[in-house]
Amino acid sequence: MKPYSKLTKEELKKLKGQLEKQFEEVKAKGIHLDMSRGKPSKAQLDLSNGLMDVLNGDSDLVSSDGVDCRNYGVLDGITEARKLLADMSEVPERNILIYGNSSLNVMFDTVSRAMTHGIMGSTPWCKLDKVKFLCPVPGYDRHFAITEYFGIEMINVPLLPTGPDMDMVEKLVAEDPAIKGIWCVPKYSNPTGVSYSDETVRRFAHLKPAAKDFRIFWDNAYSIHHLYDDKRDVILELLNECVKAGNPDMVFKFISTSKVSFPGSGIAALAASRANIEDAKSFMKFQTIGHDKLNQLRHVRFFKDMPGMYEHMRKHAAILRPKFEKVEDVLEKEIGGLGIGTWTKPLGGYFISFDSMDGCAKAIVAKAKEAGLIMTGAGATFPYGKDPKDSNIRIAPSFPTVEELAQAAEIFVLSVKLVSVEKLLGAK
Amino acid sequence: MKPYSKLTKEELKKLKGQLEKQFEEVKAKGIHLDMSRGKPSKAQLDLSNGLMDVLNGDSDLVSSDGVDCRNYGVLDGITEARKLLADMSEVPERNILIYGNSSLNVMFDTVSRAMTHGIMGSTPWCKLDKVKFLCPVPGYDRHFAITEYFGIEMINVPLLPTGPDMDMVEKLVAEDPAIKGIWCVPKYSNPTGVSYSDETVRRFAHLKPAAKDFRIFWDNAYSIHHLYDDKRDVILELLNECVKAGNPDMVFKFISTSKVSFPGSGIAALAASRANIEDAKSFMKFQTIGHDKLNQLRHVRFFKDMPGMYEHMRKHAAILRPKFEKVEDVLEKEIGGLGIGTWTKPLGGYFISFDSMDGCAKAIVAKAKEAGLIMTGAGATFPYGKDPKDSNIRIAPSFPTVEELAQAAEIFVLSVKLVSVEKLLGAK
Repeated sequence: MKPYSKLTKEELKKLKGQLEKQFEEVKAKGIHLDMSRGKPSKAQLDLSNGLMDVLNGDSDLVSSDGVDCRNYGVLDGITEARKLLADMSEVPERNILIYGNSSLNVMFDTVSRAMTHGIMGSTPWCKLDKVKFLCPVPGYDRHFAITEYFGIEMINVPLLPTGPDMDMVEKLVAEDPAIKGIWCVPKYSNPTGVSYSDETVRRFAHLKPAAKDFRIFWDNAYSIHHLYDDKRDVILELLNECVKAGNPDMVFKFISTSKVSFPGSGIAALAASRANIEDAKSFMKFQTIGHDKLNQLRHVRFFKDMPGMYEHMRKHAAILRPKFEKVEDVLEKEIGGLGIGTWTKPLGGYFISFDSMDGCAKAIVAKAKEAGLIMTGAGATFPYGKDPKDSNIRIAPSFPTVEELAQAAEIFVLSVKLVSVEKLLGAK
Repeated sequence: MKPYSKLTKEELKKLKGQLEKQFEEVKAKGIHLDMSRGKPSKAQLDLSNGLMDVLNGDSDLVSSDGVDCRNYGVLDGITEARKLLADMSEVPERNILIYGNSSLNVMFDTVSRAMTHGIMGSTPWCKLDKVKFLCPVPGYDRHFAITEYFGIEMINVPLLPTGPDMDMVEKLVAEDPAIKGIWCVPKYSNPTGVSYSDETVRRFAHLKPAAKDFRIFWDNAYSIHHLYDDKRDVILELLNECVKAGNPDMVFKFISTSKVSFPGSGIAALAASRANIEDAKSFMKFQTIGHDKLNQLRHVRFFKDMPGMYEHMRKHAAILRPKFEKVEDVLEKEIGGLGIGTWTKPLGGYFISFDSMDGCAKAIVAKAKEAGLIMTGAGATFPYGKDPKDSNIRIAPSFPTVEELAQAAEIFVLSVKLVSVEKLLGAK
């Protein structure tokens, strides 16, 4: 079929009628599907059920360096957990601080700490007239929600196929001392799947920010979340690059096992320079006596080491891969060549990013909802929920089954087609 | 033996010589004991090993209302955990918000939230010139550390046998709008073991604070931590009293299972009015997607209900009781009637509070350390670590064995005697 833009008004009208009929038929099926969040499926969760078996009442619940994990103490995390998460973060153990069950919580607390106490001796952000963050877009809604909640002004930076527009990033951070941070998902970025190029990482390491307390918030949420064995993205390790560039304190790396073991019952960590780690601990030591060491022990006993974790991630990939491919197949088959949308084919992560014709995203998501398909709200991938082009839609294929995804994709492409036809007719 | 104050200078000198000889003998034993913190002993931790057995890979990991506890979600905590901790807090389920592994963390985050966002719409505390907290003394060092960390001015309020000096509390909160809170451990108070009288609780409920965002920080850390079956303290439930008094929003109650199951691997909660719970959630929803639901499920499956928890606490009491009694016996036998110290005999909680002659506490703790006994630092039970009388010492008998405690008590009483004799000699 030829691109919709080449169709005459009559052809579009006729097409609209056919699509509406098809849509009513799909709607009549009474489907209820939620594709709004990047949640692992039941089959993926089952992969980690063994985590519930590694510790029992007869287990040795003492860490490798003799700590009874059942009692108070050990602010930094037990030695073997520090080792595992240091390896996962590709940093030395001295650069790791273990937290609780959620890296989002670590990020939130890091911003909160900067608000009330500053960073490494800087003025608390709450005492400043203005604090700003750069936000590569499209990006992760929960990042933007944190900075919005703390009244931090967010500035959109385009996310290119190589990562954020570094010309813009370099210029802005050098000029404006109110810019204190940038949100990054450097690998299999949420939602685009983009992984930052080596040059981008190096340019990050060499930033010359006007603010001494500027930090790169490097949320490596999908560091080992590949979809394929034989093709995968590899990114440069940023802390090391920052050290080489003479900027060791400029980065906070965040990591967790949320999409490795169980979301909500995993372990999270901050990776950063020793100076940053000590600064974080100066806050944390008042906040808690220690995080859940039994859960740390449980994770290390289950995964053992990085090879163990890689093997586990291949099982996740085997479940996720067909789902991504199903969505991509339907998109290609149904929309390919029509000129009404483009989408990403990521090699990892949790999302497919779809860009509709300008001004159509909200309408498409609303249309899909009519037929029982809940998608991430249009605009969610932008600060303040405002997508300037109203075109980006995040597709989260992980939770539904392949069969459900086929249905979901059918509803989605019908919604895209209908809204696009209506848009084109409106312009005629 | 007669009171030291009645001894002549010569008698004191002779006594000093004898005590120094005894002390050298004890010191020569090369003892290393840590009695500084209220940590459960290994025997107590063993009581909860079954917690590691209740969930395994074949378990039904779905909550009573159908939530897969392995996946994201459920900000408030799973239904059965809300019920259990509501019962433990003696409030309806609608007044409970489940948090992570530590009530200290809940308290810290509550103060942090007030700093950056205020409470229920009030001005964020970080925007105010001055914020003050009332601190009943002696009290819990980690409470005081939180308020000090946030630059909150702390005002000492004497803790009487009935609870804080309510004449002073009523007057101060009514007069000074900068007073935003008061730290309370209402039952088996840390370190005195005092439980607040019904009148004290009612007067708390009827406070007329000048600050609308004044809150009572009610840390019910030892709510079910009795030492005896047949005698125990009972306190009025404060939230209910606040509702009756027309002040439903004035209290934050904090609770956890830290000294019920495993410290660091327990579950914690905030109990408060719905308006306060919604306010807390408006912060928490940006901070996390949810706390560890598997650990919530684990706790409910292990304890089942409050009778289950009470039965468990009786086992803790059976281990703790002889330790408290051993320390009390040695103190009575060795120091009773000498006029050089008084101490509490609590019916529950984790501490015995000792008051030496004025100006002796620091020296006693230092002396004990010489012989290998680490105690809580003198002054720690007061804001800024400053005990105006230098007399209060917190004794934490939980962690050592009864045999170790006998040794520890011997070192302690010798240290008290020596320092007291030196003090009296200095005054002659």
